[in-house]
Amino acid sequence: MAADDFARIGRRLVAEHLVGANFGNLSVCEGGSGFLIKRTGAYLDEPGEPVFVPFSGDVPKEASSEYRVHRDIYLMTPFRAIVHAHPPYAVAASLRLEEVIPLDSEGKMFCPRIPVVTGEPGTDELARNVADGLAGAPVVIARGHGTFAGGKDLDQAYAFTSLAEHACRVIAFLRYFEKE
Amino acid sequence: MAADDFARIGRRLVAEHLVGANFGNLSVCEGGSGFLIKRTGAYLDEPGEPVFVPFSGDVPKEASSEYRVHRDIYLMTPFRAIVHAHPPYAVAASLRLEEVIPLDSEGKMFCPRIPVVTGEPGTDELARNVADGLAGAPVVIARGHGTFAGGKDLDQAYAFTSLAEHACRVIAFLRYFEKE
Amino acid sequence: MAADDFARIGRRLVAEHLVGANFGNLSVCEGGSGFLIKRTGAYLDEPGEPVFVPFSGDVPKEASSEYRVHRDIYLMTPFRAIVHAHPPYAVAASLRLEEVIPLDSEGKMFCPRIPVVTGEPGTDELARNVADGLAGAPVVIARGHGTFAGGKDLDQAYAFTSLAEHACRVIAFLRYFEKE
Amino acid sequence: MAADDFARIGRRLVAEHLVGANFGNLSVCEGGSGFLIKRTGAYLDEPGEPVFVPFSGDVPKEASSEYRVHRDIYLMTPFRAIVHAHPPYAVAASLRLEEVIPLDSEGKMFCPRIPVVTGEPGTDELARNVADGLAGAPVVIARGHGTFAGGKDLDQAYAFTSLAEHACRVIAFLRYFEKE
Repeated sequence: MAADDFARIGRRLVAEHLVGANFGNLSVCEGGSGFLIKRTGAYLDEPGEPVFVPFSGDVPKEASSEYRVHRDIYLMTPFRAIVHAHPPYAVAASLRLEEVIPLDSEGKMFCPRIPVVTGEPGTDELARNVADGLAGAPVVIARGHGTFAGGKDLDQAYAFTSLAEHACRVIAFLRYFEKE
Repeated sequence: MAADDFARIGRRLVAEHLVGANFGNLSVCEGGSGFLIKRTGAYLDEPGEPVFVPFSGDVPKEASSEYRVHRDIYLMTPFRAIVHAHPPYAVAASLRLEEVIPLDSEGKMFCPRIPVVTGEPGTDELARNVADGLAGAPVVIARGHGTFAGGKDLDQAYAFTSLAEHACRVIAFLRYFEKE
Repeated sequence: MAADDFARIGRRLVAEHLVGANFGNLSVCEGGSGFLIKRTGAYLDEPGEPVFVPFSGDVPKEASSEYRVHRDIYLMTPFRAIVHAHPPYAVAASLRLEEVIPLDSEGKMFCPRIPVVTGEPGTDELARNVADGLAGAPVVIARGHGTFAGGKDLDQAYAFTSLAEHACRVIAFLRYFEKE
Repeated sequence: MAADDFARIGRRLVAEHLVGANFGNLSVCEGGSGFLIKRTGAYLDEPGEPVFVPFSGDVPKEASSEYRVHRDIYLMTPFRAIVHAHPPYAVAASLRLEEVIPLDSEGKMFCPRIPVVTGEPGTDELARNVADGLAGAPVVIARGHGTFAGGKDLDQAYAFTSLAEHACRVIAFLRYFEKE
């Protein structure tokens, strides 16, 4: 059931070009004891069986290397599912901006401020900063790295990921239409 | 039958990147009594069964939240099908221009002027402005929000959506080829 | 057999975003008497049965409206198959340049000069100009309209279409990497 | 088995738009005697049966015309699989830069310097330069031509290809977000 949802959302993320190759990861919270996360190295659109990571205790070595970020988000926010992707416009925006302020209607409505946070991939610092950011917004961008989006389920976390990249594209494409 | 058409056109809109995640919606007019519209929250490419919205009377809560725009279009124009999408170049153009004047042959032939209209998503104001715009053009762009295209059927409304984004891309890419 | 090839190449053109909605068309030469062309209005990736157009005599009304261009190409060049698409970078380039000179290796090798020709869609003037251009190059761009590529078969004509758009993208993206 | 892997990775390369039409090629090393390479002219996503090329002796005429590059890479580096693609941002970058220095986290981690090398397609000079470059980096860009990426298997070589294009996109899109 969870595996089907992982594959279904993974296929959408790949088809929408929000992530390439075997990058990115997904997770869903499993009650109060831990969460299921994508297997490390697996393609999002062919994820196989997710791996259970307990909130305390040993982390299976098959778990995605970004498990720290996912764990801190579940411990510090009410989100029940997380999508991490590498959308190229959002990544570029994160290298130049402190936060992304969407100009499109959906961005303004659902994520009026997309924080940019710092920290190296896989570190506790990134985990803490992403979780902090997600306390006040449904999606954040880790600088130079990619988006982390939370939701009540994977569909919602995916929608916020798509929204963030859409918002960054619209900001990027604005200059094509400036009156001269 | 209608459900098959919704799914078929929805898959094309998603594959052509004219809309992401579960955004956008479709409808077809059902005689003089009302119209079938995409279920709220459903993906365009997996829309399930469309929902009937009567021209007068209660609106089922499963109907897309943009039903007002669709209703006003059917009441004020001869179109029999509507496609609403969020194509990123068209959205960016709408934030800077009062109307889009296509430079490509198809745009010039089929939609020589694409009006940009205002109004917040889901409001009566947007509904009125979009319907007004569609009285004189097969596709309009709601500022910062997305396209609304009309047609005799979903195929035609989809074609106008694709045309509008193509026209905006061509305008955008022109500057890449300016002689210096 | 021809129908299968039309669908197979049509699916590639659509998936590679070289054409949107139901635009574009394909044809293959049938000996000395005429050619098979895509049905008007059909999607390239679901083309149904192609329509036979004789070199002389009445043209079936089901034939693509661009049949004149295809006919003139077969009468004036040795090509046996034609692909017409609307790739957005090539269309934008054609509005600013008299010819496209590829900078990438494949463009330089296979189509070192891509002529830009004029004429309104569906006219004898466009047909003549495209056929003239294809006498000296495997692919031309009709200004503001799209590419016409010839080949010994549909695979080759598709490859030249893809090459032309690739060449235009590379030229477009150059400015992103200028040393400042 | 090898044929399945070729098709599986070929489909990903095509779907991710890292290569168009029937361009690009793949190979895997077969012990110390030679390697399997894509058939010349075949589509990456429908490659059919790969062709064995011995390290010494005659090269079958069905082998991809880029076999020289693949051979030199296997003789001069420890890579066991190679992916060659034509990603447009990487090709454009290679025409302006001597090397690409990724700014995104994955690029910085996995390929902090992407060399640009010279040489005409199909020549011994290109073969030598690409192999030299891959002695110090998992992916290089042949100027104006495309990427060559090595790995322990096709999945890894594909991942480096995707990474290189992602890195070039992020560099390209930066200018959209410059503070003014």
